[in-house]
Amino acid sequence: MKTRILFLFFYFAFSFAKTTPTFPFSTIINTPNGLSASAKTDHKLYDTKYFTQILDHFTFTPQSYHTFQQRYLINDRYWGGAKNMAPIFVYMGNEGDIEWFAQNTGFMFDIAPHFNALLVFIEHRFYGKSVPFGGDKEAKSSSKALGYLSSTQALADYATLIIDLKKNLTATKSPVVVFGGSYGGMLAAWFRLKYPHVTIGALASSAPILYFENITSTYAFNDVITQDFRSESENCYKVIKGSWQLIQDIGEQTGGLERLRKSFKICKNYISVGSLEGWLSTAYTYTAMTDYPTATNFLNPLPPYPIKQMCKAIDDPNYGSDPLEKLYGAVNIYYNYTGEVNKCFDLASPSDQHGLSGWTWQACTEMIMPIDGNNKDSIFPASEWDYNERAQFCKEAFNIEPRPNWITTEFGGHNIDRVLKKFGSNIIFFNGLRDPWSAGGVLKNISKSLVAIIAKEGAHHVDLRFSTKEDPKWLKDVRRKEVEIIQKWISQYYHSLTDLEF
Amino acid sequence: MKTRILFLFFYFAFSFAKTTPTFPFSTIINTPNGLSASAKTDHKLYDTKYFTQILDHFTFTPQSYHTFQQRYLINDRYWGGAKNMAPIFVYMGNEGDIEWFAQNTGFMFDIAPHFNALLVFIEHRFYGKSVPFGGDKEAKSSSKALGYLSSTQALADYATLIIDLKKNLTATKSPVVVFGGSYGGMLAAWFRLKYPHVTIGALASSAPILYFENITSTYAFNDVITQDFRSESENCYKVIKGSWQLIQDIGEQTGGLERLRKSFKICKNYISVGSLEGWLSTAYTYTAMTDYPTATNFLNPLPPYPIKQMCKAIDDPNYGSDPLEKLYGAVNIYYNYTGEVNKCFDLASPSDQHGLSGWTWQACTEMIMPIDGNNKDSIFPASEWDYNERAQFCKEAFNIEPRPNWITTEFGGHNIDRVLKKFGSNIIFFNGLRDPWSAGGVLKNISKSLVAIIAKEGAHHVDLRFSTKEDPKWLKDVRRKEVEIIQKWISQYYHSLTDLEF
Repeated sequence: MKTRILFLFFYFAFSFAKTTPTFPFSTIINTPNGLSASAKTDHKLYDTKYFTQILDHFTFTPQSYHTFQQRYLINDRYWGGAKNMAPIFVYMGNEGDIEWFAQNTGFMFDIAPHFNALLVFIEHRFYGKSVPFGGDKEAKSSSKALGYLSSTQALADYATLIIDLKKNLTATKSPVVVFGGSYGGMLAAWFRLKYPHVTIGALASSAPILYFENITSTYAFNDVITQDFRSESENCYKVIKGSWQLIQDIGEQTGGLERLRKSFKICKNYISVGSLEGWLSTAYTYTAMTDYPTATNFLNPLPPYPIKQMCKAIDDPNYGSDPLEKLYGAVNIYYNYTGEVNKCFDLASPSDQHGLSGWTWQACTEMIMPIDGNNKDSIFPASEWDYNERAQFCKEAFNIEPRPNWITTEFGGHNIDRVLKKFGSNIIFFNGLRDPWSAGGVLKNISKSLVAIIAKEGAHHVDLRFSTKEDPKWLKDVRRKEVEIIQKWISQYYHSLTDLEF
Repeated sequence: MKTRILFLFFYFAFSFAKTTPTFPFSTIINTPNGLSASAKTDHKLYDTKYFTQILDHFTFTPQSYHTFQQRYLINDRYWGGAKNMAPIFVYMGNEGDIEWFAQNTGFMFDIAPHFNALLVFIEHRFYGKSVPFGGDKEAKSSSKALGYLSSTQALADYATLIIDLKKNLTATKSPVVVFGGSYGGMLAAWFRLKYPHVTIGALASSAPILYFENITSTYAFNDVITQDFRSESENCYKVIKGSWQLIQDIGEQTGGLERLRKSFKICKNYISVGSLEGWLSTAYTYTAMTDYPTATNFLNPLPPYPIKQMCKAIDDPNYGSDPLEKLYGAVNIYYNYTGEVNKCFDLASPSDQHGLSGWTWQACTEMIMPIDGNNKDSIFPASEWDYNERAQFCKEAFNIEPRPNWITTEFGGHNIDRVLKKFGSNIIFFNGLRDPWSAGGVLKNISKSLVAIIAKEGAHHVDLRFSTKEDPKWLKDVRRKEVEIIQKWISQYYHSLTDLEF
């Protein structure tokens, strides 16, 4: 029994399409904005610029010389200027629209005044407005074009852009610190390892750089989700765990699919047991990732500690005794927390509002992260990670063969403690242990300057969010520690200038 | 007045074509073998194998999936085996036939028994027998194919091959040490920086990784050559320095070219002042590079300390008073030391016996090394490095535009002390200061484990040559130091296994 989607996006921010209301509920399928309206219109957050970027850094074919416009966002309000060699903080854009990431990486805005830092957010090639070949349609229509979407090319883009930007600002001596969360965190860590001449250090938040090949157990990701729910209540865990069989059983009954459809307010156009189970597991998975201590509007609008809320819905006797009703109450937290408009959930055609679709390509080429195994205690049905299933999908979708060993060949990962104990420096690996991706993160210090910061109560790159007054102490502590370490990198950099040059 | 070739090959082992004898001299234009006949037929030095390599590691276009057969040479006579985690020494092939490099890297054979090391020599893509697209003709006919010839692709080739080879030998725990000289030394240093998970350390011999952009003076390369000759005798330096104007003057006289042709035994088919000057400066340059303390047959057959011999020819009153005769005596050391057969020097069509032609492409794309400036004291005519001249040549030759900033973008180089002081480890940078390439080498220790070894009397990767009884003490000292350091890397590696795993 396969209930999970074939591969997980880091950010499943696809919204289920709005349809005309078909149910007499006073709720809607909210289309998450990911942003507050004010943030969206606050043009002062940054200026938008474009850089002429080369298509292929690593070959010299005629095609490689093609260029595209790479978008980056810049904010110099807090910058101390080139003359003072004031630092430059660069966010390494990940698999979506860079504005979305910039607006959800408040930490950089919060600390920029303290550091007098210039803020730069660079968009990843093939996402947002940084699309080669003239546009989405041309760029994403064939592997001839999509082939240039890769992590190594993105890192080289960042190096090229940063070096050029510093020259243009006559700020070649300003230290650059890079930031990133999730896939962007992986890029930040790798960038410090591959381009130490471009950045003095990296904050790699929730970067599962060890979730490749056989470095991390295929069960570990879902074990974290299981533990997240189980830690709220054993009943909550059991109800969800038991629901898969229940749904299967109902689905096989006469009129069962229609009963399921109505119970979960699925639109009339499409339902199947598999798609329903995928829809449910998506809710549990992304809620675990975003189990933040304060309300969020990043993936979907969510209350503080949404897993607790989900389990409340399941455990609360007021929701009646029908398990379907309880489950609906739970997933409604994820899909419909604000509950303002009457809509149904359209399983057939979700829309991709943050422009994340390129990740499907990346997950079919180099990003082969074997996260989807489930042991017998998993909250999801027991199953094994199946590489062939991925390969088959990729053949059908793109006629492409994955290169499952490439990431570890290029970036390492095996025995990372030993390899990096005396190599590399100045990376912070932050992980929140309630985040399933933490299972593939660096959770132990490797050396004095390759540091792991973990937060037992934390979720997916919670440290990078805008700070609020409601933030718990542990989160404030994490951020203070990060600021201290970054401060040390910068001080050491200035000292190194003095030692060698003055 | 431009006397120099447009860009220098690391190894100018192009032999001037044999022609029917046209001069009654008892000398020949020797076609250097680069190898003794016995080495060429000694099949026991290594076995030849092939690895199916991917065309493009960094994109996923349909074209990128093409493969080619990459040649590597292997010698397991001294290997202590996978069970003992005995080390693997890998030579990073440079711009020519790998057999030529293997047979001229005796150091690895010399020390293999001490380390019980497996020896592997990997051929660089587009050289020797490791040519994609079915062969030299197809691979080198257009930039569509040649475009895949690049240093980053070569490094990824090496990582991929080494990881696969270790798996096949069940030797995943054997430490890998990489070696290289000249461009191969650059690759070795970069490989340790970019792939620390694949190699525990690198011996980068005569690797001018700092001869890019404006890091090193454009005059520095020729200053070393100037100093090499001047240190033998001021007269020698002055005669050569004065010869360029002399040759110009004679060339402008009636019958002057014919006089020059006869003086230097140039074949009848072609001569010009420029080509003659290029031919002369080539001799001085490559003799400086290979100013070894013992006889060599690497580029051309040469006596020990060939610069000393050249200057003897110039300074010796027995050679008469005609400066042309003296100059001929000097360059004859380089072009015709064995002097066995009657031939003339054919300036029109040199042949490329070690398969080095791919370097022209590399020098037109990423390897923009601005070495050819001459200040007023240079042994060559004063001139400035001219990027546009290179660009113009590359446009005509390949219709390609160089990317002069790419190497420093990808590998760094600016402020290398500061950047690597707390980043990276385990690289030996060897340089012989009589080697003009040493001007772009790392000549000072960067940290405890990023070590510079310099030999005042040394030439181009002299440390990597087969040892002989005649080797001077300084050379033995260099090699002993290198062995000690490599020994330390390996010991530390074994200790790290113990610390973490047992």
